[in-house]
Formats: sequence, structure tokens, C-alpha cells
Amino acid sequence: MELLFKDITVITMADDILYNVCVGVDKGKISYVGEYKPEFVAERIINGVDKLLLPGLYNCHAHTPMSLMRGYASDLDLQDWLFNHIFPVEKKYTRDITYAGALISVAEMLSCGVIAFSDMYFMIDCIARAVDESGMKANLSHGMTAFTPDFDYFKDRCYTETAFVWNNYHNSDNGRIKADVSIHGEYTSFEGAWHQASDYAKKNDLIMHLHLSETQVEHDNCKKKYGLTPAQIFNKHGIFDSKTVAAHCVWIEEEDIDILKERDVTLVHNPVSNLKLSSGVAPISNCIKAGINVALGTDGPSSNNSQDLLADLKLASILQKNHTDNPTSLPAYEALKLVTVNGAKAQGREKESGQIAVGFDADIVMLDMCSPRQTPVIDPIASVVYSCTGRDVELTICQGRILYEKGEYKTIDIEKAIFDAKQATKKLGIY
Amino acid sequence: MELLFKDITVITMADDILYNVCVGVDKGKISYVGEYKPEFVAERIINGVDKLLLPGLYNCHAHTPMSLMRGYASDLDLQDWLFNHIFPVEKKYTRDITYAGALISVAEMLSCGVIAFSDMYFMIDCIARAVDESGMKANLSHGMTAFTPDFDYFKDRCYTETAFVWNNYHNSDNGRIKADVSIHGEYTSFEGAWHQASDYAKKNDLIMHLHLSETQVEHDNCKKKYGLTPAQIFNKHGIFDSKTVAAHCVWIEEEDIDILKERDVTLVHNPVSNLKLSSGVAPISNCIKAGINVALGTDGPSSNNSQDLLADLKLASILQKNHTDNPTSLPAYEALKLVTVNGAKAQGREKESGQIAVGFDADIVMLDMCSPRQTPVIDPIASVVYSCTGRDVELTICQGRILYEKGEYKTIDIEKAIFDAKQATKKLGIY
Repeated sequence: MELLFKDITVITMADDILYNVCVGVDKGKISYVGEYKPEFVAERIINGVDKLLLPGLYNCHAHTPMSLMRGYASDLDLQDWLFNHIFPVEKKYTRDITYAGALISVAEMLSCGVIAFSDMYFMIDCIARAVDESGMKANLSHGMTAFTPDFDYFKDRCYTETAFVWNNYHNSDNGRIKADVSIHGEYTSFEGAWHQASDYAKKNDLIMHLHLSETQVEHDNCKKKYGLTPAQIFNKHGIFDSKTVAAHCVWIEEEDIDILKERDVTLVHNPVSNLKLSSGVAPISNCIKAGINVALGTDGPSSNNSQDLLADLKLASILQKNHTDNPTSLPAYEALKLVTVNGAKAQGREKESGQIAVGFDADIVMLDMCSPRQTPVIDPIASVVYSCTGRDVELTICQGRILYEKGEYKTIDIEKAIFDAKQATKKLGIY
Repeated sequence: MELLFKDITVITMADDILYNVCVGVDKGKISYVGEYKPEFVAERIINGVDKLLLPGLYNCHAHTPMSLMRGYASDLDLQDWLFNHIFPVEKKYTRDITYAGALISVAEMLSCGVIAFSDMYFMIDCIARAVDESGMKANLSHGMTAFTPDFDYFKDRCYTETAFVWNNYHNSDNGRIKADVSIHGEYTSFEGAWHQASDYAKKNDLIMHLHLSETQVEHDNCKKKYGLTPAQIFNKHGIFDSKTVAAHCVWIEEEDIDILKERDVTLVHNPVSNLKLSSGVAPISNCIKAGINVALGTDGPSSNNSQDLLADLKLASILQKNHTDNPTSLPAYEALKLVTVNGAKAQGREKESGQIAVGFDADIVMLDMCSPRQTPVIDPIASVVYSCTGRDVELTICQGRILYEKGEYKTIDIEKAIFDAKQATKKLGIY
């Protein structure tokens, strides 16, 4: 074996907690889960006492290059924040700046146990470079905006980047980096452009990633404009014919829930961003009950302002308890699905990742439970969801490769990445 | 000088951010804040580049020994949780168990930059021992419950412990540990006992610490019973004649807000616990606007399940933004007051702590801002409130004494504390 975890507690996410077992890793895959055998020989053995193993985490809605605007223009009204601050700065993004911002986000996520993310931004070939170097997985999409019908938006703005990711990564052996297609949102594009994007997604069997009913204004304006909600108008136009990931869904209605369920759309909940921008609380407990696949996202670091998915998972659970006036809502194990099996499904990776099971990719996070804040561990699942944060992540492994261990980055020159990110922020004129 | 921070950014909480300054510490006090002078001689110099200094944090509502029930009986209905799980286990607490639970909480808080807490529990002499050994500050109260009038509750149950803390610590030179008095809540005691506790508090000039309108049931039942809200009935009985700290206040009404303001009662907000138990969201933005002193608490680790005050501070801010439907609510600097100057005021320590200013106690937390998750620092206050958690705490200092530094505890044998806490949990029969 290349790697053997010994005497470790494992939350498999295949409905099991295993105590004091061994987990073996070979050639990027999980090769063994079970009792110790004396004949085991391993290149490296990790003592699992007081550790906890679970599948590597999925952050299913991100805008990674926005890390460079972290903390910029806080506590403002949404329109003021977006139009007077974020958009003008985004116009200054160059290819190098985009790469530097993506890389610092990738490093942050690795230190928080995240092994895969779904990103929506631009210059996604630069983001792909950061992901490729890091060893993580990602589904990358160019967030198409299209405000007037006199332009071939998808072809002119999105196609080249998407095709680059498709050609260079999507079909590679390891399948780590995939191209998604993105309609940024109903309110930022017109119907003709939707079809340009959607046709490309259908033709190439790509996932569609979009914003849906994030704010009440967006939702209500859509109803005024079309007489239909964003989910209804997208459905009418066949956008959900592709496997779809819809971020936010704060204001979706009963009929929308039926549509998302029927069309197998994944809902990506972003609780920190939704609270910070006063958008509201998405009804994810109801959606889970309805059978919808619900995943979790941090959203961009300028509306969060961090990418610690375990911290956000705790919020997701306790926020639903309050929102439904029921402390039994979104219990710990259901919550943990959001960032593991459900996240893998959102990315079309559920047959290869999201569980600790033989034959699956060795996408693993190991938590250190020997600290005052994790004493005692009475219920490992409750500990992970309600007590753990990125602080407890000791080891992040993707496809069998250790990418992060005890503060050390194995694939990223972190001092250079931090220096470059600061320089890039200076170039944006906000630092 | 005993200790000199050099080239450091300081959030003084006296309405200043100072860049590239020096902060000196002598004999437990802050002795210097300003520019570097060549004649400085210091026993230890700390390079402040990429670090951030702010006042040590105040956690104003805790039940520290409950750490041992962290993660026990999650996701249950409130009444089931309390009466069938928490209360039966609490009956098994011995003096050693209480001490072990308090010590592990104290260690957790130190690692999160907390230098002072207000605790409400029992066997507070055992909690005092843990605090004393740790070097932290705390205000400790025995949470008086009194269900029938045929008993001298305060005298028989609370007096001995409170007097012990009063005699052994309260008036000592350093004033680190203080005795408060506590009426657990309106719904857990009758009026006669309130006067026993209140008279003792008034006579000895002690702070009153109580739960107030945490749940709707509690609030509504009080109105049915007395025709008055909990705040109104306590005020009528003169309970607020002592300086008072009221935890939760989720369901307080307009008239209650007037009372809290008029009687200078501190409101302690506990957002994680309030969400986790589906209690609701306290209207703290309105209360701050009304001029009430608002502080922050983690509540006990069995309803949180951690004691990372910076993490909870982020939630406090973003939750108000959503609750008020206004993203400008509880902006970062206002939020930071909750855990510094306002917390110090809640404990009656505002003349000696809660600010980085000459003559104040050297109660200091230093954050490490050189990490992917803190890159870039565009606005130091936004970074602290929205991006930092306990993970970023490098140094926790109380009265000039380093208690925690880079994962090392200077006053606590942490391996023994963790071992003892696990043993104590086993004795409780839940581990």
C-alpha cells in the first residue's frame, strides 16, 4: 500500500461509522477499508488514534478569484456594493490577477479540507491553471452575462475559455478538472443567449451552473417580466435539460420545488453569503424532504468572507433549525451529506468520490480531534458538524495525493502565492 | 519593558486603527502605544509584521462545565433535550467533574483569544480553581433555580459557593476572578427567592447575571402568569437595581427595550445557541440603536458546540443584516465592540480592560494574518469580524501574562486536561 491509516474512526458517508479500522490507499484509489491485517506493508502508515477520517469536502458554489476583494467594501447596500465597488474592480482583472486570486482561494480551501469546488467566473483557463497545479478537483464555468440581444454572447465571450478547459482537462485520464457551462442568472441575460449556452451544454453533455432566485427583487422582477419565476422560465426554455446546479434558491416557491425535484436540479445553499447580503434563508429542509439534491457553497470570498466549508456547514444546520422552528431539522448526518455525497453528485462525480469506500477516488480529509475544542468526542458526526472547522483539518488528500498537511502545502509555494495575491490586489487599486 | 510588539497594526477599540506602531507591556499593564524609539529595551520583542493586535475578547455568557456534554443528544426537541438528557446528566456532576469540564472550556477559550468570561453554573468554587490556574479573568455565578417557596434557596444553595469566590478571589489585588449573583431565570424560580439573591447582590455590590426571554414559550408563559414580561416583572421586583447582565433577550418587546436601556442592563447575545435550539433572533441592532450595552456569549458548549467567539461574532453580524433586511446593519466595528469594550463593561471592567490603551490591563490577542484565508487584509476590522476565527489566534495575553501561544498552553497541562475531561465524561456515563 502507498498509504495506510490505522486505528482510525471513519465516517464513510455510506451510512456507516467505523471505529478503529484501517483505510488503505493505492494508485489514487481507496484500496481497503476494514480490520488490520498483520501482512499489511505500506510506504507510509498514519496513526489514526484521536483522528477522524471522512470524504474530502465539496464546495459547490464559488467565485474563487474574488478572494482579492475579501473585506473590500463591507457593510454596504447590495446595489451600492455590486455596482459601485465590485463590478468596477472586476473590470481591472487581468489573466495574472485572476490566477493569483484563484490560487489563494484554492490554498484556503485545501487548508479547510475541501477537495473540489464548482466555480463561476471568467478567464476560467487561468483558474484551471491554479487548480491543475494544486491537485484539487474543480468544475469551472464562465458566468455568462448578456444584456442585449445584438451579440453572440456565448460564442464570443464564453466559448473560447470553456473549449480550452474542455480540450485540455475535461477528458483527461484523471478527470480532475471539468468544464461546466454557466448562465449567470435570469436577470443578467436575455433568452436568446440562454439557448446559445444551453445548446452547447447539451451538445457536449456539460453541467449547467446558474444563480437562481437569490434575492426577492430578482425573483419578483422575473415574475413581473415573464409572469413566471426564474425556475419556471428556465424550465420552459429547456435549460434544465442539461444536468443543472442552481445556486441560492432563497425565494423559490412550491411549484419551483416541484420543478427542481422533477428535473433533478441540485440546489446549492450559500448560507453565509445569503445572510451577509440580507438575501434571506433558503428552504433547504423542505427541499431535502421533497427529494432534491442539496449541496453547500461558500459563494465568493467577497460576500462571505472566507471559504471554510465546515464552518458554513454548522451555520447551514442551525439556521434551518431556527428557520423551521424545529431543532430536529437538518440533523448532523443529513447536513454532512451536503458537503460530501450530495456535492459529488452536483459535480457528476458521485460514482467516484464523496464516500470512503473501496474503489472510490482517495479523496479524504483527516481531522485532528485531540484538542480542547474537540474534547470529548461523544458523537463523531455531531462533532464534525457542530464543533469542527477548518482549524481541525490535519490532512487533505485528493486522488491519493497529499495536498495539505498540518499547515504545509505540498503543491503550492504558499509564500509566493500570498505575495503574488497581495501584489495583484495592489494592481486592482484597493490595497 | 517586559514585552514589546514592534511594527504592528493595532485595533485599539478606542476608535483608532494604528499602523506600524509599537505596544509595550510592563507589570501586567499596557505601558506604551506609539512610534518606535531607539532607546527601547525589552525582555522580549515580538515582530508584528503581518500580525494584528486587538484587546483580548470577552465571552459574556457561558456554562463552561457543559463542555463534557458537547455533542451529546444533538438535534432533539428542546424539552426532550433538557429534561431527558441534559438535566439527568448534570445531576451526576461531582466537584472533580465540574473542574475538569471548566478547565477544558478555559483552554478552548484561550486558544480562541478569549481572556474573560461570565459563567453561570454550579460548584463555582471548582470553576474558580480552573480559572485561577489558567490566568484568565472570569465573573462566576451560581445559577439559582428555586421551584417552591418552602426553602431558603439562595442561602442554602448559592451562598456558600458565592461567598467562597467573594472571600478568596473577588477582592484580591489582581481582581481577575469576581463573584456575580445569578437568578437562573424567571421561569425556573419564584419571587421570594429572587429577593434572597437580589438582596445579597445589592448588599455586596455584585453583578446580577440571568436568562431573559430566551424562548417564546418562556416569554409568553410569564405574561400569562404575571401579566408582565420577564423584563417587566424583574424590574418591578427591583432585580435590576444591581448592575445586570441579561442573556438571550430574543423575545423582548419595545417596552422591555426601554427598561433595559433605562436600567443600564447589558444584553448578552448568543446567536449560535439561539439558532441551534430554534429560539429565534434577538433584535440587537435595535437595542444598540436604543443605547443598550450589547455583549456576546457562546452559551454552553452543549448548545453551540464550541466556544470560538470570533466565529460567533461573524454570525452575530451577518444574522442581524438578514434579520433587519439591511446589509448595513451591525457593521464590523460595531460588532467588534460586542466582544471587547462592551464585554468589559458587562463585567464591570471597562476602566481597566477592553482597549489597547496606556494604563489598561495588558489583555491582548494577537492574530496571524499571513495565511491564504487572511489574504489580502484590505480592511483590518472587516478581516477580524468576517474572516478571522480562533484559528488565526497566535497569542492570548491576560494582565501581561502569555497564556497561549501558537498551540501551546503556558498555564495548563493540556494533555492531562484532555485526559481528565475524557475520564470525567466517562463518569457521566455518556462516553
